[in-house]
Amino acid sequence: MKLIEGTLEKILITPEGENISREIPEGEITFEGLVGDCHLGLTTVTHGHQPEYPKGTKIRNDRQFTILSVEELSEVAKTLQIPRVEVSWLTGNLLISGIKNLSVIPFGTRFIFSNGVVLSCSGENNPCSHPARITQSYYPEIEGIARDFVKAAMHRRGIIAWTEHSGTLHPGEQFRIELPHPWNPAWQNEAE
Amino acid sequence: MKLIEGTLEKILITPEGENISREIPEGEITFEGLVGDCHLGLTTVTHGHQPEYPKGTKIRNDRQFTILSVEELSEVAKTLQIPRVEVSWLTGNLLISGIKNLSVIPFGTRFIFSNGVVLSCSGENNPCSHPARITQSYYPEIEGIARDFVKAAMHRRGIIAWTEHSGTLHPGEQFRIELPHPWNPAWQNEAE
Repeated sequence: MKLIEGTLEKILITPEGENISREIPEGEITFEGLVGDCHLGLTTVTHGHQPEYPKGTKIRNDRQFTILSVEELSEVAKTLQIPRVEVSWLTGNLLISGIKNLSVIPFGTRFIFSNGVVLSCSGENNPCSHPARITQSYYPEIEGIARDFVKAAMHRRGIIAWTEHSGTLHPGEQFRIELPHPWNPAWQNEAE
Repeated sequence: MKLIEGTLEKILITPEGENISREIPEGEITFEGLVGDCHLGLTTVTHGHQPEYPKGTKIRNDRQFTILSVEELSEVAKTLQIPRVEVSWLTGNLLISGIKNLSVIPFGTRFIFSNGVVLSCSGENNPCSHPARITQSYYPEIEGIARDFVKAAMHRRGIIAWTEHSGTLHPGEQFRIELPHPWNPAWQNEAE
């Protein structure tokens, strides 16, 4: 596999009850996630978006982190014709650069940070309308951002991830990614 | 996606220090795994097989369960020209039927059992030589099983998995599988 590397640009937490995330100088990563963030936990409670679970079911927490990229947020801003979209408006936890097509990276891809933290991707972060309203509120003079946000941000909203190995993260830290085994051809047809 | 269903045939635990697994009448599934099995735990310690971790590193436990299939074990036996290979000889935890090509099922596939337990696949179970010796010991009169086992069992050794939703499992229970999103074409080339 090719060596694919990126840089951790920012670390942010969303304290319980707040609606945007705020930058912190270093991230303490435990098996529960990012200390100080409202998604911290080994388990979580379903919100009714998963048809196989009644709302309120306790399941393992695979949404400990939201990871977004500088490149994709810049594309969202360009599509919306606004100067910028801040990672904090999407309550992102890690802003990275250097990885093209981050949002559609395969399930199970591992992010191996130079100081030892390892995170595992548990899927694409699906769009919701909350950051649409937040982004609109920063550009009150421009019409239609709230309306157009979800479409503009489709497949650019980053990924969710959980901790495989704990440690400390710092802005500026490098990481490499490791892709899981590609799908065996025996299963390709079954997904259609 | 097509509906793909199977049956849970057997539940087995390997108590700490033992080298084959034993059948149990019902399985208590927690977020740590299968109660009574030696792989129980939210975290585990690496054995030196993963180059990115020094031996003895504490990481999240994605090997709570080993799942094998009746069909693949039957193929292993056929290849080795022996009457049968028991799931217990491979210290399997769940023996299932009805899923073709189980061992190469995509990372992240979910097994949704009819009584509510959900397990998530964390990869193929790599062959080791331990079950080769065990299987040989059950057929002392047949030469070469220990030698040929790893090759015969390649991509038929089942998968490893972890708990997404806890509950109780019973032999005879039905389940359906849910595949993750297929790889986006943007990432296909990167894996080569």
